[in-house]
Amino acid sequence: MVDVSNGPLRVAVAGASGYAGGEVLRLLLGHPAYRSGRLEIGALTAGSNAGATLGELQPHLLPLADRVLAPTTVEQLAGHDVVFLGLPHGQSAAIATALPESTIVIDCGADFRLTDAAAWEKYYGSPHAGSWPYGLPELPGGRDRLRGATRIAVPGCYPTVSSLALAPAVAAGIVEPRVNVVAVSGTSGAGRKLDVGLLGSEVMGSLRAYGIAGAHRHTPEIAQNLKAAADGTDVRVSFTPVLAPLPRGILATCTAPTTVDAATARAVYEKAYADEPFVHLLPEGVLPQTGSVLGSNAVTLQVTVDADAGLLVVIGAIDNLTKGTAGAAVQSMNLALGIDETAGLSTVGVAP
Amino acid sequence: MVDVSNGPLRVAVAGASGYAGGEVLRLLLGHPAYRSGRLEIGALTAGSNAGATLGELQPHLLPLADRVLAPTTVEQLAGHDVVFLGLPHGQSAAIATALPESTIVIDCGADFRLTDAAAWEKYYGSPHAGSWPYGLPELPGGRDRLRGATRIAVPGCYPTVSSLALAPAVAAGIVEPRVNVVAVSGTSGAGRKLDVGLLGSEVMGSLRAYGIAGAHRHTPEIAQNLKAAADGTDVRVSFTPVLAPLPRGILATCTAPTTVDAATARAVYEKAYADEPFVHLLPEGVLPQTGSVLGSNAVTLQVTVDADAGLLVVIGAIDNLTKGTAGAAVQSMNLALGIDETAGLSTVGVAP
Amino acid sequence: MVDVSNGPLRVAVAGASGYAGGEVLRLLLGHPAYRSGRLEIGALTAGSNAGATLGELQPHLLPLADRVLAPTTVEQLAGHDVVFLGLPHGQSAAIATALPESTIVIDCGADFRLTDAAAWEKYYGSPHAGSWPYGLPELPGGRDRLRGATRIAVPGCYPTVSSLALAPAVAAGIVEPRVNVVAVSGTSGAGRKLDVGLLGSEVMGSLRAYGIAGAHRHTPEIAQNLKAAADGTDVRVSFTPVLAPLPRGILATCTAPTTVDAATARAVYEKAYADEPFVHLLPEGVLPQTGSVLGSNAVTLQVTVDADAGLLVVIGAIDNLTKGTAGAAVQSMNLALGIDETAGLSTVGVAP
Amino acid sequence: MVDVSNGPLRVAVAGASGYAGGEVLRLLLGHPAYRSGRLEIGALTAGSNAGATLGELQPHLLPLADRVLAPTTVEQLAGHDVVFLGLPHGQSAAIATALPESTIVIDCGADFRLTDAAAWEKYYGSPHAGSWPYGLPELPGGRDRLRGATRIAVPGCYPTVSSLALAPAVAAGIVEPRVNVVAVSGTSGAGRKLDVGLLGSEVMGSLRAYGIAGAHRHTPEIAQNLKAAADGTDVRVSFTPVLAPLPRGILATCTAPTTVDAATARAVYEKAYADEPFVHLLPEGVLPQTGSVLGSNAVTLQVTVDADAGLLVVIGAIDNLTKGTAGAAVQSMNLALGIDETAGLSTVGVAP
Repeated sequence: MVDVSNGPLRVAVAGASGYAGGEVLRLLLGHPAYRSGRLEIGALTAGSNAGATLGELQPHLLPLADRVLAPTTVEQLAGHDVVFLGLPHGQSAAIATALPESTIVIDCGADFRLTDAAAWEKYYGSPHAGSWPYGLPELPGGRDRLRGATRIAVPGCYPTVSSLALAPAVAAGIVEPRVNVVAVSGTSGAGRKLDVGLLGSEVMGSLRAYGIAGAHRHTPEIAQNLKAAADGTDVRVSFTPVLAPLPRGILATCTAPTTVDAATARAVYEKAYADEPFVHLLPEGVLPQTGSVLGSNAVTLQVTVDADAGLLVVIGAIDNLTKGTAGAAVQSMNLALGIDETAGLSTVGVAP
Repeated sequence: MVDVSNGPLRVAVAGASGYAGGEVLRLLLGHPAYRSGRLEIGALTAGSNAGATLGELQPHLLPLADRVLAPTTVEQLAGHDVVFLGLPHGQSAAIATALPESTIVIDCGADFRLTDAAAWEKYYGSPHAGSWPYGLPELPGGRDRLRGATRIAVPGCYPTVSSLALAPAVAAGIVEPRVNVVAVSGTSGAGRKLDVGLLGSEVMGSLRAYGIAGAHRHTPEIAQNLKAAADGTDVRVSFTPVLAPLPRGILATCTAPTTVDAATARAVYEKAYADEPFVHLLPEGVLPQTGSVLGSNAVTLQVTVDADAGLLVVIGAIDNLTKGTAGAAVQSMNLALGIDETAGLSTVGVAP
Repeated sequence: MVDVSNGPLRVAVAGASGYAGGEVLRLLLGHPAYRSGRLEIGALTAGSNAGATLGELQPHLLPLADRVLAPTTVEQLAGHDVVFLGLPHGQSAAIATALPESTIVIDCGADFRLTDAAAWEKYYGSPHAGSWPYGLPELPGGRDRLRGATRIAVPGCYPTVSSLALAPAVAAGIVEPRVNVVAVSGTSGAGRKLDVGLLGSEVMGSLRAYGIAGAHRHTPEIAQNLKAAADGTDVRVSFTPVLAPLPRGILATCTAPTTVDAATARAVYEKAYADEPFVHLLPEGVLPQTGSVLGSNAVTLQVTVDADAGLLVVIGAIDNLTKGTAGAAVQSMNLALGIDETAGLSTVGVAP
Repeated sequence: MVDVSNGPLRVAVAGASGYAGGEVLRLLLGHPAYRSGRLEIGALTAGSNAGATLGELQPHLLPLADRVLAPTTVEQLAGHDVVFLGLPHGQSAAIATALPESTIVIDCGADFRLTDAAAWEKYYGSPHAGSWPYGLPELPGGRDRLRGATRIAVPGCYPTVSSLALAPAVAAGIVEPRVNVVAVSGTSGAGRKLDVGLLGSEVMGSLRAYGIAGAHRHTPEIAQNLKAAADGTDVRVSFTPVLAPLPRGILATCTAPTTVDAATARAVYEKAYADEPFVHLLPEGVLPQTGSVLGSNAVTLQVTVDADAGLLVVIGAIDNLTKGTAGAAVQSMNLALGIDETAGLSTVGVAP
């Protein structure tokens, strides 16, 4: 139960005109604390879109259609209990520094995800701002780091599904520390940015890989998560993202060399996720599909072994905007606030 | 508040493996009465899919994945307070007749929509089973017919948006009683039936009209609604449905001859829908899009006048499975039960 | 047979990085004159993309991948026998004026389509540059205007299908001169321009109308064509374009008041298009679909009468980039050159 | 030049109502031998669709719309010089046996692809019918096997792109013989079969893996090709197919352990495909996309090395119906007939 002895909790969203910000707002509008008046949606800010109404930019958020976007400044974001940041890379640190330490700041961007300054600089080309508690409760120790936290780094979408798909095997030592992830994604993962390659005419009817051979910025994030799961052993990560013609969803195919059989592997995953509300190991033979988790916070997994190839094969599906971004952000907020972790989040997808 | 003095309300869904049944279940899982334990999901039945688990057929409904589908029989459906029917045309009457009159039976099919037996027989080619209160509360008098009703006919998806788009103008007498509707729909409106023309390979990348020139069964239903709105004056309806490559959504372009100006027309619609929770007249110049109402129960409208052509032009958008089917069914259930009409329904879409 | 007594015909494409220019090039690469060496692809020019290779911008044109785009200037375009223009509105006149009168200039843009200066200024907000022979051979008298022409205005995509769908009825006087067109289009009709509303994430899974109530610039062009078909009688045009999630294709639903029966209407269309190589009246009951004309220069039509509504109903399908733009341009070039009108064009679509 | 001393070459297509058969016909209609009258399209046959016109089933093939489908029998197919088979697995042998040895029989199905009877029986569960020359000219020795052949097995779509992506590296010995292929495909690869999972409503907006961990029948075919390329060394193949929402196209991500650098790897591929008309190694840094090869016979590849992961990474794109099926069939026919291998085939895609 949100403590409302000082009045309703006030929540701001910076970058409310983007896809991450819009999805945070979609989830907040359905959050029981909002519905019961214990949580208020305060400042909504934007960059170049400041001054527009939310109705013009996020017409799916009808209850907030008349809200006018303020510029993203510390002044606008001050005075809130929780601030979600959905900003371009590099803009979060200045704002977070200026907000009180007691404000829960949840960054949907990358700035505070990596602990290794060298990896940050190699992949982002700017000074490392530091690292915050990582908003993936289902990783070993993840939940404890988030309870009561006031600074939270929301994971990248690809690292979310890839890490959850591989961490149990890595942690249990049933695979060699060399993993291969080929993850197919919908287009919203690229954000709402103007890029010819993201035009509908270009993406519909086409598939393309990008950022191959370790060039994608999510590669070191996956490696960091798996290294932690492996108790510090380095894990080599091959990561290939593929863009497909759908707005939402990531389907990851994850493999790693193994000598165990399928039943052994399955038992490891059953145990790892037995009590998780959002991570579902599907029945044997049933394969994940992204359409089933559209708008939901669920992660669906299947695990088996390809004995001929000597590989563990794990397939995972998420909605990149929900569990892959905003759902993780709200889940982290819930943990930070000490309320029901699942509040406002669902395992029911919108299908077909 | 659902009366639970005799224990939780028990709800059954017949045709739970279809798209309408699946969407009813999706909405029920988010309904506050379900979440608080005052509503239970009882029998889930199917035709040829009986015996399968819901997880195999509706993998997006994770919380019900283990439920086994029973055959659709009166025995299975008996003993429930509310029964939703998502059955092929012609199968509802036999079941409804056998259920107690006190059971709230909500038919998502067409069997009880038309009041005119001749129209029914012309379009459906079978004897008329009768007509039930029509589950479109936003039509004149619609809400009163539904309060306390125990038999409800859920409107067709095309008639929902077309009737709401045109009824105010017809009722106000600002158009001649000759209307033209061209409505573009996603594929789920055709149901989950095996038809080569509905294969993904056929529908993706293609647009096609079907059931043109009055051949579609929703034509007399639109005419019936508009005649009622016009206080009994016959309204000629030209209706053209077009199939487009998306799973959900209807975008209807509705026109009728008029001599009034845009401001006058707008005022009529503002008045008609001022207090409606789900029908939203968008600000001037803002046009509806189906992506904004995905999964929501909202109807978004824009109205203007094409003075050169002498036509009122109304554009309407809905999600055919939500407001166009299952959302209307749940909204009608709420009215029948005497609880908050909007319970379990949202005006927030899942976008992008 | 292209006259090559002075060497191969040289063809330039201005705007080669856009969708219209790319489609012109696709068709030229398959043109028999190109394949036999009688036609050479000369200068390829672009605006801000000048300096890039075609391979970077139009990777589907593999045989031209190494060609470097020159800036769009008169100098670059001089010295060619045929110049295709695929430029933003308003840029064609200056170039055309500077090229010799003997050069065949084929403008895929709007600048020279409208004969009525007032209509031009109302819809385009700039001075009228004049009008050129209109590149729709299938309209009454259309072919004669194009034979030997050296300046050609390629029709807009919506006007192409709408005019061909309605001209026979208007010309035969079987409908009242009030027509209603609702045309659903793929996204490439909007060109390759950066616009948030055209991002894949926004268009996939959504339908939206735009430019309603006579606001779209193609409205006066349709009216002009139909007035000509009606021997000078003004035709009132209601036009509603709808954007759908597919790259290519327009499906137009066209209606007009009539008192004739379906057989009479069909006979009119059979006669009108009996000898046309690209306009196909489908067998009774078979409806056009855009997927069947993908990449082809065909127009498929179906015509019937909705007697209850008192309307002629014509459905038409084209590929907006082929028959709707570049196919018409090549067809016009063929006529201008006096060679086989169908050379390099096909009625075979790429499906599924 | 096709020898027409005995009259035009007569070509039949069995399974003309399916996607493979339709694509063969699309290509034949554009083949120079057909256009010049040296090749005639003879019998078109079907199974349950016999009796229908091609216009009803393949409306994109307008020039053949009036052709009536005959039943697939030896009698119908006799008397042709070339017979393409697009039949369900297991039906080709009986027909091929009954046709004269001099008839060129080109099987788009799987029946004669595998040389290893045990692999066939394991994957297809029926007796092995034997093996025919394999229709992938770009594999080592492939072209020689096809010149003058009268029985040809067209490769599977996934093996086509996977084998071409990996064979040079395997042949050159720059990778360990353990490869991983994750290939994302459009839906037409599944054929035109009625399956709930292939409905448009199910596939649009969703991604799903299937046939994982070696279960897909194309796994042994890839292994067979790579073993041949490796001069008989067994190659372990991990293969994961993923279904994506588009009609056509396969994008394959192929990896294998390597110690060479990117330049070395690139040189191997440049040499391997320097003279190939259809296999294009893209410039460094340019990644293949399926939209660029839509309807074309091209294979586009990119190759690099992920040094951190120790893997060669090859990305390949094809149109599964063209180079992946019917294009390979026509290319093989050309070789069998001794005419220009590229006749009727293009490297120009239909985009956007």
